[in-house]
Amino acid sequence: MKLRSLVAALAVVCVTLSNASAKTIAFAEMVNNNITVEEVKKAIEGWGAALIAISNEYETNGMSASRALAEKVVDSAYGYNMGAVLFKPTLASGDQTFRTNRSGAIAYFVGGDSRFPNDNGFAIKGWKKFDYKKAAIYINGDIALTMGNVMLTDSNGKVTTVDKTWGFKKDNKGNLRIVLHHSSLPFAQ
Amino acid sequence: MKLRSLVAALAVVCVTLSNASAKTIAFAEMVNNNITVEEVKKAIEGWGAALIAISNEYETNGMSASRALAEKVVDSAYGYNMGAVLFKPTLASGDQTFRTNRSGAIAYFVGGDSRFPNDNGFAIKGWKKFDYKKAAIYINGDIALTMGNVMLTDSNGKVTTVDKTWGFKKDNKGNLRIVLHHSSLPFAQ
Amino acid sequence: MKLRSLVAALAVVCVTLSNASAKTIAFAEMVNNNITVEEVKKAIEGWGAALIAISNEYETNGMSASRALAEKVVDSAYGYNMGAVLFKPTLASGDQTFRTNRSGAIAYFVGGDSRFPNDNGFAIKGWKKFDYKKAAIYINGDIALTMGNVMLTDSNGKVTTVDKTWGFKKDNKGNLRIVLHHSSLPFAQ
Amino acid sequence: MKLRSLVAALAVVCVTLSNASAKTIAFAEMVNNNITVEEVKKAIEGWGAALIAISNEYETNGMSASRALAEKVVDSAYGYNMGAVLFKPTLASGDQTFRTNRSGAIAYFVGGDSRFPNDNGFAIKGWKKFDYKKAAIYINGDIALTMGNVMLTDSNGKVTTVDKTWGFKKDNKGNLRIVLHHSSLPFAQ
Repeated sequence: MKLRSLVAALAVVCVTLSNASAKTIAFAEMVNNNITVEEVKKAIEGWGAALIAISNEYETNGMSASRALAEKVVDSAYGYNMGAVLFKPTLASGDQTFRTNRSGAIAYFVGGDSRFPNDNGFAIKGWKKFDYKKAAIYINGDIALTMGNVMLTDSNGKVTTVDKTWGFKKDNKGNLRIVLHHSSLPFAQ
Repeated sequence: MKLRSLVAALAVVCVTLSNASAKTIAFAEMVNNNITVEEVKKAIEGWGAALIAISNEYETNGMSASRALAEKVVDSAYGYNMGAVLFKPTLASGDQTFRTNRSGAIAYFVGGDSRFPNDNGFAIKGWKKFDYKKAAIYINGDIALTMGNVMLTDSNGKVTTVDKTWGFKKDNKGNLRIVLHHSSLPFAQ
Repeated sequence: MKLRSLVAALAVVCVTLSNASAKTIAFAEMVNNNITVEEVKKAIEGWGAALIAISNEYETNGMSASRALAEKVVDSAYGYNMGAVLFKPTLASGDQTFRTNRSGAIAYFVGGDSRFPNDNGFAIKGWKKFDYKKAAIYINGDIALTMGNVMLTDSNGKVTTVDKTWGFKKDNKGNLRIVLHHSSLPFAQ
Repeated sequence: MKLRSLVAALAVVCVTLSNASAKTIAFAEMVNNNITVEEVKKAIEGWGAALIAISNEYETNGMSASRALAEKVVDSAYGYNMGAVLFKPTLASGDQTFRTNRSGAIAYFVGGDSRFPNDNGFAIKGWKKFDYKKAAIYINGDIALTMGNVMLTDSNGKVTTVDKTWGFKKDNKGNLRIVLHHSSLPFAQ
């Protein structure tokens, strides 16, 4: 008898902070600072769309217009406004491998910056299509890390595949910003 | 013409990292360390169920059994295994207001600890019903903070209302643990 | 011999990700979004100083000036700009126990708001001195939770003690904002 | 006069939650879940030391011993115990580019796994020296992200440089675990 009621009591307690039904609880007000999978998906699609938009802008309206667009993209999609960004672009190397400040990012995307003489504008290479696959995601608070393959198709139909890691931070306004970006060409055996 | 295509390009960029459609992205693998509203609801219901279980255990099987149950509840529902817990129980006062370690929490719930002479066992007061209302929640990573009213009904139908703040931490195993608990009787004008 | 070298190898590995000397690593650039103990101490002292400043302003320049100051304090020290704040002031009760929006906080501090008829202005009660003791702190990312006793001394030397929980969030600009505040009079036996 | 006292009051308030002196506040108890720069430095040095240890173990005691050591290293230094790890090793490619589970990581380090036929054991290539430079760090709660160059020297004195991104998570026991690892050979113009 004693045992039976203890078992009954424990049955209740086993659900303690994990399995209760939670039928009756409602929150009248809520703040949620966490990043969501859906937000990350949109950010990745947005990055691809922006890259293609810069390519199109270059073709249609020339360098000056595409540079203006690239600046807009970097300023809205990367976290340089909050400090250094850990950015290793695909085709950067040597002393200019890491682009931790804004000017290095813009130079990489549209070139034309004498401080980055090897940059010839990754974003103005005529990209027409963006795909993303074999991806994994790690979410921790307002940070999400993703890793996968990005496939970029140019106007000749040629596909370039890169291994891509992004780190997104959700800022106080609810916008996602890239604070980490490591891109590399696949290892060729 | 130039203007029109710029507008078109900007229209694409405006969606940059926030409004894209995200139709095509899928993550094959995922880790998500964030706490969810649903988990918090269950944790709160679980806390109420555990309190009632301790009361029932006391009535049915006496002090020793209810103490064993209270220890089990504290060890599974609070974060004492990870360090100090910020716990201010409803009826604690003076030098014993704050119960930052495990023994202080157990003493509060079931009494019988000479180091806490004013404790007469909050959890063994014959509680039969737990309700929660007027609640708000603040979620930040693996932490959720809630504030609201808890209504406890005893075996005579008498309802005790308290103002209650909880802070929950989701641990590496996915379990929620109380790391903050501030409970107080309503201010009486 | 085999055993000895295995032991040697394991000795190295035991230090793996925790005990290495780290003599040679340096980071050229750093972003650190975490809240620090020192920042929390300053925020608490700042809260106390602001409360006294509002009291002094009321005495010297009257209600309108103290209200303007209270608004400034609430707007800079609380997180209402980022959504609901979990605020249970010491002397609030009934339907107005929780002040999750800005107007409820200002009404509590300086009164004079017909929507909060029981508020007579907690911050204009002639407070002269602020002390804080028996405190514990829980730090998790950009959130810090504190619990302890606040002692407020009025112009007659009378000391009011409250049990106080604060939750601070460090925003993207590096400022701490109160997102949780539960204050209660000590339980009287 | 009125103006002067308002200025004085504002002077106090300006310090509100940021510049106060914080002379008198002390916390008797503290929990701090945040990752520190020093912990990250040690983790990086530890990773380098472990890689060299596996190489040495292979030379001294052969494959079986080095495999046992590699398993120990992966199990203590990576976060596979908490779910998928975002791991893109330097020399992995094709369908086996991403090693999100434990067996893929061990295969990469010591080879000999028929499921990963291209792996010939990166950690058993006779590494003698580990260096790290041009690094940046981004800290967010219990996560730290680093990016920089790793230089590995083999027994012939030949140096291999890689571009390296790590993401470390501090677990509930205070140990750092790698949850993200993207390594790539420098882009060759």
